[in-house]
Amino acid sequence: MPEFRLLRIDLWRQKAREERIPDKVLRRFLGGRGLGAYLALREIPPHADPLGPENRLYILTGPLTGTVDASQGIEAGRYHVVAKSPLTGVLGESNAGGRFGPWLRFSGYDGIVLENVSEEPVYISIIDGEVRFHDARHLWGRGVFYTEDRVREELGRTGPDEGAVLAIGPAGERLVKFASLINNKGRAAGRTGMGAVMGSKRVKAIYVYGTRDVGKEIVDRQGFMEAARKLHEKIASNPVSKSLNAYGTAVLVNIINEHGALPTRNWNRGTFDKAAEISGETMAEKYLVDRRGCWGCTIRCGRITKVDDPVFYTSVGKGPEYETIFAVGSNLEIGDLRPIIKINHVLNDLGMDTISFGNTVGTLMEIYEKAVNGELPKEKAEKLMKLLHDVKPLWGNAHAVIQLAYKTAYRDGIGDYLAEGAVSFAEEFGCPECPAHARRLELPAYDPRAINSMALAYATSNRGGCHLRAYAVSFDVLGVPVKKDPLAIDMEKVRLVKFQQDFFATIDSMIVCKFNTFSTEPADYVPLLSAAMGWDDFTEEELLTIGERIYNVERLFGVREGIYKDTLSPKVLEKPLPDGPAKGRTAKEALEAYLPEYYRLRGWVDGKPTRETLHRLGLDEFAYIVS
Amino acid sequence: MPEFRLLRIDLWRQKAREERIPDKVLRRFLGGRGLGAYLALREIPPHADPLGPENRLYILTGPLTGTVDASQGIEAGRYHVVAKSPLTGVLGESNAGGRFGPWLRFSGYDGIVLENVSEEPVYISIIDGEVRFHDARHLWGRGVFYTEDRVREELGRTGPDEGAVLAIGPAGERLVKFASLINNKGRAAGRTGMGAVMGSKRVKAIYVYGTRDVGKEIVDRQGFMEAARKLHEKIASNPVSKSLNAYGTAVLVNIINEHGALPTRNWNRGTFDKAAEISGETMAEKYLVDRRGCWGCTIRCGRITKVDDPVFYTSVGKGPEYETIFAVGSNLEIGDLRPIIKINHVLNDLGMDTISFGNTVGTLMEIYEKAVNGELPKEKAEKLMKLLHDVKPLWGNAHAVIQLAYKTAYRDGIGDYLAEGAVSFAEEFGCPECPAHARRLELPAYDPRAINSMALAYATSNRGGCHLRAYAVSFDVLGVPVKKDPLAIDMEKVRLVKFQQDFFATIDSMIVCKFNTFSTEPADYVPLLSAAMGWDDFTEEELLTIGERIYNVERLFGVREGIYKDTLSPKVLEKPLPDGPAKGRTAKEALEAYLPEYYRLRGWVDGKPTRETLHRLGLDEFAYIVS
Repeated sequence: MPEFRLLRIDLWRQKAREERIPDKVLRRFLGGRGLGAYLALREIPPHADPLGPENRLYILTGPLTGTVDASQGIEAGRYHVVAKSPLTGVLGESNAGGRFGPWLRFSGYDGIVLENVSEEPVYISIIDGEVRFHDARHLWGRGVFYTEDRVREELGRTGPDEGAVLAIGPAGERLVKFASLINNKGRAAGRTGMGAVMGSKRVKAIYVYGTRDVGKEIVDRQGFMEAARKLHEKIASNPVSKSLNAYGTAVLVNIINEHGALPTRNWNRGTFDKAAEISGETMAEKYLVDRRGCWGCTIRCGRITKVDDPVFYTSVGKGPEYETIFAVGSNLEIGDLRPIIKINHVLNDLGMDTISFGNTVGTLMEIYEKAVNGELPKEKAEKLMKLLHDVKPLWGNAHAVIQLAYKTAYRDGIGDYLAEGAVSFAEEFGCPECPAHARRLELPAYDPRAINSMALAYATSNRGGCHLRAYAVSFDVLGVPVKKDPLAIDMEKVRLVKFQQDFFATIDSMIVCKFNTFSTEPADYVPLLSAAMGWDDFTEEELLTIGERIYNVERLFGVREGIYKDTLSPKVLEKPLPDGPAKGRTAKEALEAYLPEYYRLRGWVDGKPTRETLHRLGLDEFAYIVS
Repeated sequence: MPEFRLLRIDLWRQKAREERIPDKVLRRFLGGRGLGAYLALREIPPHADPLGPENRLYILTGPLTGTVDASQGIEAGRYHVVAKSPLTGVLGESNAGGRFGPWLRFSGYDGIVLENVSEEPVYISIIDGEVRFHDARHLWGRGVFYTEDRVREELGRTGPDEGAVLAIGPAGERLVKFASLINNKGRAAGRTGMGAVMGSKRVKAIYVYGTRDVGKEIVDRQGFMEAARKLHEKIASNPVSKSLNAYGTAVLVNIINEHGALPTRNWNRGTFDKAAEISGETMAEKYLVDRRGCWGCTIRCGRITKVDDPVFYTSVGKGPEYETIFAVGSNLEIGDLRPIIKINHVLNDLGMDTISFGNTVGTLMEIYEKAVNGELPKEKAEKLMKLLHDVKPLWGNAHAVIQLAYKTAYRDGIGDYLAEGAVSFAEEFGCPECPAHARRLELPAYDPRAINSMALAYATSNRGGCHLRAYAVSFDVLGVPVKKDPLAIDMEKVRLVKFQQDFFATIDSMIVCKFNTFSTEPADYVPLLSAAMGWDDFTEEELLTIGERIYNVERLFGVREGIYKDTLSPKVLEKPLPDGPAKGRTAKEALEAYLPEYYRLRGWVDGKPTRETLHRLGLDEFAYIVS
């Protein structure tokens, strides 16, 4: 920075060229998620096939990425991926840690765009500005772990911290709609099927390495380091940061279960009787062997777990995160961390999003139960049973889940249907009311019937059901910045959801880790950006306006596709929870109460930004979309 | 017949043309295996790459195939596959039952040759003489079961007995060296990697159907039916036939275990303490739901088993055969039929030979044990452990075996090495003495140290270690035609081995089931062939000469490749058995005693036919190979 070096890679022609994104664009979108949304809306044609050559995959860093190492880390080790999603049909995007983001910057570029499609499978290396294409036919079909090892070997750079590899597994190659991108053998850009987009372009992996010193490009180095030090201290001293270090995200299992919001048995219950057995505390006691942070991170929430059980054997592996413990644990009634750790490992290796996979298998288990009970149309039940010739998807059957992971990644038999995601699967087999989702993206691990602000957060999330666009759990459960009653209708919570959506959009664009938001505020980032970019008159208000601008651009992508209704699937909207503190509740009351106020705050009508709102945010060029 | 209609399919040009093989060739080679060996030796160039376009895949029936239905069956429902083997480098060939053979004849052709390679994956339908090529890109990567269902659906022929589908699974596509061809969802042409050859040609499946009445082409219909009736009565009344009906081939588990010849723990023992739990008797008691015969069969040795256990769930599935129970049971110390049935099902679906797979995994388990005990070179051990990041190949760990099946079929990580077969795997990881094999083909379920005629049978088998070229168990254990002592050196047994090799070659060429040989003799087939082909002066001696001719042609293929040394791997040749009735014995003594006499009977010198022998058999055209 201040200019953003974007590497455009044309896969048809195997040509790469650098484009410099000027400061005036960065001051409107920062980088990362914001820049990706802006470029995607301009460059991806309306109604493009997400798996066709006209889709583009943006892999972007931000102005803070890779600037401060772990010694006084500000958690700026992440990158963001953006493309039209094959799962949802709207803008897909996903954010991941590890080491790929910083190494991408060190390689000489701040971002990459994959354009068109390659004729044959390739992997790409970017080393000190030099882009090379390598035949990857021998890697096609292989898992992520093997691929990373082979790519490093072939490039002669086998040191684990010598550059970084971003790869897809067989799931991405086979266009599984929720395929992920994995770097560092376990850090996933998991949601919305970005792995399938890379697979459709026949890019197996990207290796990045270089010696660029991004710190030297900071305009006011001294001011920047001073601001970073202050931010670092705030983060390091915060109790949530410490708790994340001690137990990882899995610390949430017991807390969310106590609130009756731990989705269990495919969202048919909100509490799991074996929650304690799959908690972060149990993981720390029995299976934790190390903690791992991303590049430049002091929180170090990453788990290294080891199961040395012959059946569920996995040696040292990353995770599992809280979301995975829900998705392939409580949601499938698997109350044992050994298979959860194993399944997590297998899903990382195959390159699939654990949240979507767990929800899809949960949907299968529910539909299978209906078929057994004679509650499914005969023809649907027969088709299902035929496909289940060798696997029995009973609640709690971890072995079936492992087999289904392979079948899904390779699209064999029943897996070919599971690979389409929970909503398509449920439609195919006659139970559209079975999956819990918003905008066809399967919901993460917080039941909105028991944490009612999440109903609004999920419904209005531009990429579909997501806990990372607004993390209302923060105030409804954890008391940050204020403690709210998760079951009360409280219009102040609408303002907080909108605030988080805008703030988080800037977090994903600068880019820092969202866990920073437990301990920091927008104002904390103003001096950092100001120093990094030379924006002397930059203000907190301008930062939040950037966040709002990004949120509107993402929304416009959905409006242009005709997908912008803010709602939830009947599973949580209409079906009452049968257990726990929220027994008898649905998400409908809260969503209906919150949505009008949310639209008022946003300046939207029926989910669409008005021309006035776009004008206020400097987005007149996109007014045609709402006219 | 009397002319053999051979369909030559050029996959490059997507053209098919019929060639008529004249009677004079059939009278020298019959059909099936014999004709295949003859054509392969003429048409496949020396040192051809088995997975390159110059290899050819012959799928052939014989003059008896499909002639008499099950009402008075003569077990003529089989077909034979021939090609250069990617596993052994010599002539590969394999024989299978089910329904594909007869339906191939009914479709209008007696055999198919796949030539060259297809640009894109295809499947082929042959319906009443009409050959069509269908795009199979959507089936690439799919399992055998799904593929068969989809092919039938797409062709609008969903009746289970309406034609037949021969398919490869993902293993064949990915050129796993022991990939099989599967028809009827569980009948395998398993050995020598014929599935990889079909995969290399990018043919996913072949569907055959038609209304040709092969009975009408029989020269002397009345004489034929009379001879068939006599043969049928002999077979139906025989106690071995009845025993095969009652217990399937698995009846052998207890018998062979009692002889100390049941390979256990990768050939490190000859008895298994859990043999009774994996026996045919236990299978019949607990898991058998039906018996199934091939087309035209009254023995009906095929098992339909059902396991309704959540972990090892498989609904109705074929097998397992005795060989599979050894390979993935005793050989891996898995003493429970539930996982064995499950693994068998998975291997059929993925399209892999159970014998080679079980031996290869057994080799891995032994090498892994060595690595753990520090008995492997450090660099080899490290490489192995890295590849085993998510699976622990301990003896008896059925879950690991299931995962390894997927990894092997898709060539992921450790599976990429397992896919090369036991010998290559063992060489790669520093234990060439670990696998039991002959000519790089992994040995089947009879330890030659405890049944000493099998030492000669395995060593001299042209396709490599095989129990179906000479089944010496027949006299050494079962007493057919005479009872011999399995541990005694007895030169009469050499003559019996040679006799079986020649007789069996005709069995595989007519084609009937080898189980007929427990109850019938060469003379029984003379009137059948005579009536079918109009060979009025045909004799038993001529039939056995045909068998000898075939055996020599197969041998010449190996000689031309430079691979014709008749020996066994050190595992059984030099390492003494530690347990059972044959404790302390190796296979060396018997093999050294038998081999000179065998060569004398064959008219071979050091494993090579002499010019005189070739002249006697009318094979002068191939004399150049031994000159």
